[in-house]
Amino acid sequence: MSLLVVGSVAFDAVETPFGKRDQMLGGSASHFSISASFFTDVRIVAVVGGDFGDEERAVFARHNIDTTDLEVIPDGKTFRWFGRYEYDLNVAHTLDTHLNVFAGFQPKLSATAREARLVFLGNIQPDLQRDVRAQVPRAELVALDTMNLWIDNTRESLQKTIQVVDLLVVNDAEARQIAEEANLIKAARKILSWGPKTIIVKRGEYGAAMFTKDGYFAIPAYPLESVFDPTGAGDTFAGGLMGYLASQPTLDEAALRRAMIFGSVMASFNVEEFGTERVQRLTHQEINRRFSDFKRFTNFEEIPFDRAMRAV
Amino acid sequence: MSLLVVGSVAFDAVETPFGKRDQMLGGSASHFSISASFFTDVRIVAVVGGDFGDEERAVFARHNIDTTDLEVIPDGKTFRWFGRYEYDLNVAHTLDTHLNVFAGFQPKLSATAREARLVFLGNIQPDLQRDVRAQVPRAELVALDTMNLWIDNTRESLQKTIQVVDLLVVNDAEARQIAEEANLIKAARKILSWGPKTIIVKRGEYGAAMFTKDGYFAIPAYPLESVFDPTGAGDTFAGGLMGYLASQPTLDEAALRRAMIFGSVMASFNVEEFGTERVQRLTHQEINRRFSDFKRFTNFEEIPFDRAMRAV
Repeated sequence: MSLLVVGSVAFDAVETPFGKRDQMLGGSASHFSISASFFTDVRIVAVVGGDFGDEERAVFARHNIDTTDLEVIPDGKTFRWFGRYEYDLNVAHTLDTHLNVFAGFQPKLSATAREARLVFLGNIQPDLQRDVRAQVPRAELVALDTMNLWIDNTRESLQKTIQVVDLLVVNDAEARQIAEEANLIKAARKILSWGPKTIIVKRGEYGAAMFTKDGYFAIPAYPLESVFDPTGAGDTFAGGLMGYLASQPTLDEAALRRAMIFGSVMASFNVEEFGTERVQRLTHQEINRRFSDFKRFTNFEEIPFDRAMRAV
Repeated sequence: MSLLVVGSVAFDAVETPFGKRDQMLGGSASHFSISASFFTDVRIVAVVGGDFGDEERAVFARHNIDTTDLEVIPDGKTFRWFGRYEYDLNVAHTLDTHLNVFAGFQPKLSATAREARLVFLGNIQPDLQRDVRAQVPRAELVALDTMNLWIDNTRESLQKTIQVVDLLVVNDAEARQIAEEANLIKAARKILSWGPKTIIVKRGEYGAAMFTKDGYFAIPAYPLESVFDPTGAGDTFAGGLMGYLASQPTLDEAALRRAMIFGSVMASFNVEEFGTERVQRLTHQEINRRFSDFKRFTNFEEIPFDRAMRAV
């Protein structure tokens, strides 16, 4: 088993200027695993309530997502998030959050789960993330996501967790806030000095950037004329990234670069419809077509300026 | 003579968190022409007062910038801009503006100026820009810049001007405001439908994007750990872009892509010191080194995902 994700499985109620859904499969682990499933086998560690039904299970099953470690609390209710987007789809307005069974989530990893080659620690309390990290000592790559809530309230614990992972995947504002540094390049250097080998920064419509000790890589976003529902875009990005990496024999810089493109491709599809709806029915041909598009719209010939050619 | 720029020559007084300058050479045409001078011969059409001195003239002379069309009004004063940047260097606070001789600027093109192969219409009133455009009917490429002032107050005239140029070079917010469209991709498509063949959108720390009828190209910004003074970055970008194009025999998509990189390289140097100070002492080796850096940090191997390789 190659890829493990720990995070939330939820029911999302979302309103956008283009429509609404009262209850759809959501949560970081759902978006992540469905996205990653196009590249590798994924195992999910999360918790749901008795209201988590056959329909949702069927989605995971269709994508070959292993739910052995999906804990069910029959007399509890699944985490619910109620959100709204105005015309500025960059800003999610949380209307209500019912943590339900997620409030007491204690990730329990089976023996098989502990053998995962790659692990993604989705956005949960950093003590829990560190606890999971300790259970996968032989993982080749452990990646971490977080959010402003944990940066604000559990800074010390979060920093300890960052120190013991290989890859941090956060958005632009989170990277600056974690490092307490307005300049993103300086922020990334500072976080790298704490331990991670790599930081990948998601920048929404501006693309993504990767920082390593000696390297820098940046890509634009896939150009979309309309964004329908951005919920889960970040986790879908991470799913494509980690799923693609899991398919690769060597996790070197070149593989990481391609993985960022595949992550961006998956996120570009995610935002085109509600929740996971578009990603669920993707084909590998569609994915590869957008991957090639990225090459087409970022490529240029490396011809230095020849001073002798200076036009007069 | 290959490249003509029409715009402002000014004295800038700038304060940043890192220091201040009371009077330095500024204005769109100054930043543009000094940047472009590394790639081609430039001729400047602007107006200055009697206070425009030998020191400023020497800067132009050193960069082989032709000032034959630089009008001097001996009893007038040169345009002055007083600006301040707080710690957020993305936002320029204008403290004061003395238009002086610039208020009555009527660009007059000499016979030689009218033969320019490439023309850059810097940010001035759009009626004046259209008047200049009519004087260069044989130019191979005419590019246009503008600002929120003209979008707000002279929308109709600006749109007429956009209709008769080949290339629009604006920033992100300006493109959205011109098209009255929040999505940048849609905004670009709309503006392209008015006439220009190409739109290049400057996105500051997020890089730049180019839109043509069938094409899209996007690059990140050069990663800088510190920005010292962003004044003139946009004009320096345009100078590198247009200067490089002027050095090329064919103005095709491939040349435009490389030109965007050279524009970004020049802008990256511009912001490292006050005004034009850093750009003035650049070498071609330094420029080419950052051009190659762009290739290094945007390149990836185009290997589509092989479904058969899907890891289990």
